[in-house]
Amino acid sequence: MAAEHSSARSEGEQIEAVYLLRADDVEAAKTRARAIGVEQTVEFPPELIATGTIPGQMIGEVETIEQVDEGHFAATIGYPPATAGSELTQLINVLFGNISIEPGVRLLDFRLPDGLARQFRGPRFGIDGLRALIGVYDRPLLCTAIKPMGLSPGDLADLSYQLALGGIDLIKDDHGLSDQAICPFEERVARCTAAVQRANLETGQRCLYLPNVTGPFPDIGRRARFARDHGAGGLLFCPGLAGLDSMRALADDDRLALPILSHPAFQGSYAASTDAGLSHRVLFGLLNRLAGADGTIFPSYGGRFAYSQAQCREVVAGATEPMASLRPIFPVPAGGMRLARIDELVRFYGRDCMLLIGGDLHAQGPDLVRSCCRFKHLTTDAAAAMASAHH
Amino acid sequence: MAAEHSSARSEGEQIEAVYLLRADDVEAAKTRARAIGVEQTVEFPPELIATGTIPGQMIGEVETIEQVDEGHFAATIGYPPATAGSELTQLINVLFGNISIEPGVRLLDFRLPDGLARQFRGPRFGIDGLRALIGVYDRPLLCTAIKPMGLSPGDLADLSYQLALGGIDLIKDDHGLSDQAICPFEERVARCTAAVQRANLETGQRCLYLPNVTGPFPDIGRRARFARDHGAGGLLFCPGLAGLDSMRALADDDRLALPILSHPAFQGSYAASTDAGLSHRVLFGLLNRLAGADGTIFPSYGGRFAYSQAQCREVVAGATEPMASLRPIFPVPAGGMRLARIDELVRFYGRDCMLLIGGDLHAQGPDLVRSCCRFKHLTTDAAAAMASAHH
Repeated sequence: MAAEHSSARSEGEQIEAVYLLRADDVEAAKTRARAIGVEQTVEFPPELIATGTIPGQMIGEVETIEQVDEGHFAATIGYPPATAGSELTQLINVLFGNISIEPGVRLLDFRLPDGLARQFRGPRFGIDGLRALIGVYDRPLLCTAIKPMGLSPGDLADLSYQLALGGIDLIKDDHGLSDQAICPFEERVARCTAAVQRANLETGQRCLYLPNVTGPFPDIGRRARFARDHGAGGLLFCPGLAGLDSMRALADDDRLALPILSHPAFQGSYAASTDAGLSHRVLFGLLNRLAGADGTIFPSYGGRFAYSQAQCREVVAGATEPMASLRPIFPVPAGGMRLARIDELVRFYGRDCMLLIGGDLHAQGPDLVRSCCRFKHLTTDAAAAMASAHH
Repeated sequence: MAAEHSSARSEGEQIEAVYLLRADDVEAAKTRARAIGVEQTVEFPPELIATGTIPGQMIGEVETIEQVDEGHFAATIGYPPATAGSELTQLINVLFGNISIEPGVRLLDFRLPDGLARQFRGPRFGIDGLRALIGVYDRPLLCTAIKPMGLSPGDLADLSYQLALGGIDLIKDDHGLSDQAICPFEERVARCTAAVQRANLETGQRCLYLPNVTGPFPDIGRRARFARDHGAGGLLFCPGLAGLDSMRALADDDRLALPILSHPAFQGSYAASTDAGLSHRVLFGLLNRLAGADGTIFPSYGGRFAYSQAQCREVVAGATEPMASLRPIFPVPAGGMRLARIDELVRFYGRDCMLLIGGDLHAQGPDLVRSCCRFKHLTTDAAAAMASAHH
């Protein structure tokens, strides 16, 4: 199979990676691109590799080079799928392993051949599946977090109950809640799931509670199973802290079969420079889909962080545009969103997003149920207004 | 315990993190630092948290602010250990989770209180332990990689045999060798361990073979045990691809008890900007030690990558300077090192480093055993010259 792939070299059968390269002119860009094709595969002096041998067939080949601006070029490199095998860790290694260390190289985009893409199940639910679980189809989903860190499991359960009663669709752990002595994982999960189930019986709605199962390597699976067994509706996971492939394993686990929200903690450095690291499309969109997230939390423009509207559009594209057989997933704009901006956010992100509002729900006053109702009404109204404007 | 830690707030009992902050003046830097103390802990409007409550005690406090240059300040923030609990994933989250997304914030350094540091066993072997395993005390250790990708397990075993016969101390898989169809993990490990053991019988030396166990989440432990059971002398691991805590779990596993070399694939973006991400000290030094690596591979100055001498000195400091009870580990300069530079490299890195030379051993001509002997002699001579110069 390896030889078949690597000898074909026709478009659609290669892994195609698009890099932004810093280079003075097109010749320099070509030289850099060729060096990347070697670095990411054989990592060996190419003059010592005989042509026609299998190592020679492994080398990534430069397909196209285009000037982007003064000093930058976009290079498409085709890698034989045999270099990646069928593992997400090794696929990421081929796309951006060693060259993450080189200055002036950014991974803008990638496309997988169908055969390789089929090795990854991707999101189990995606947008449609998550909507069906919750039973909400005509507006953005409403998400919030239970916090602050320092509250006891009982306090957080009380909070969860009020949030669910107020009509929130997904209640996630704050990503800083792990298994600290002050708020042990199992007690928190047991109490919060019970609280949300109690609220669901009262409202008739299907609010999901998503505990954070980011944690020590040997405990991730156990915590996820505990969550499932105690009625959690999904999982929160930080792939930057615990690995993209750990998230993939959770998504692929048929005994769990739970939706997953991905949180970007410790991943921001990949997008900190405009000509290094990963594009917002790759980081928040494509990699999360490959690794099975059903929603991708990211810092929206206009919040506490500094992403631009264009960068946020890139996230949406990576999360929702066609990508082999992988389901589209929810973009989840977050990071200091406020109720006062819902109308604008819904116009910008459209109906198929999940709005994550945390602190501002509490800043509305002591009646949290009422603040959540407002969150829901504002979102429903904004979605309806947008829908009627489209007709 | 949480309350005890968080109410103390005295130096030495806090997690102390030193950040480089971009800011116009000291007041702006203070405001940023205070916001970080909130962002990394409660992530909640602080005005809504009553003082004296446990959430209030969780907030990171600004300890010192110093101007570094025009537009940059170093801020030390003290976090209560209770925020991190005893988990590496959550400790990293507190140090640099959400603020990895903020522009103009770099984690320069951190110190753990003894109580928290004792939660981490760190490197099982470290410099002394690894030297004792191999039986080499008076010179830098010699490391190389088997490659290129595309060779069969039999070819790689032949290569391993020659490299071990030539006197290499540690032979690692290329980090691009995972479990591809063309070179399955188990066959490769079985053959290469046998080849290195055969060479060891002939030479009387104790060369270690370190297979790459970076892979899918559910397979990491199984591959490591397979390697151990088949006589591998250590493990290669890419924490950027599979998670720092996965490496920690391998290092902590008493049934494995194998030394670990850490490879920086997919981690370079953290050090791509001078005022974002992680310092070289933190990225290649401190985090690898916390996560149990016995040696840290990094791109040396003067190779294919572009790190400066100062940055490489930072790596060495992070790998070897006192860090609570954690053992010092080998800095492993790599990335296009050549035999012609051994003298200079030994003078720069000293005796307690591991030199990793790959392609250049092959570029010396067809007699690989002879090239390895040269690698060893050049290194031994350089170490002896340095020792005599010091007397």
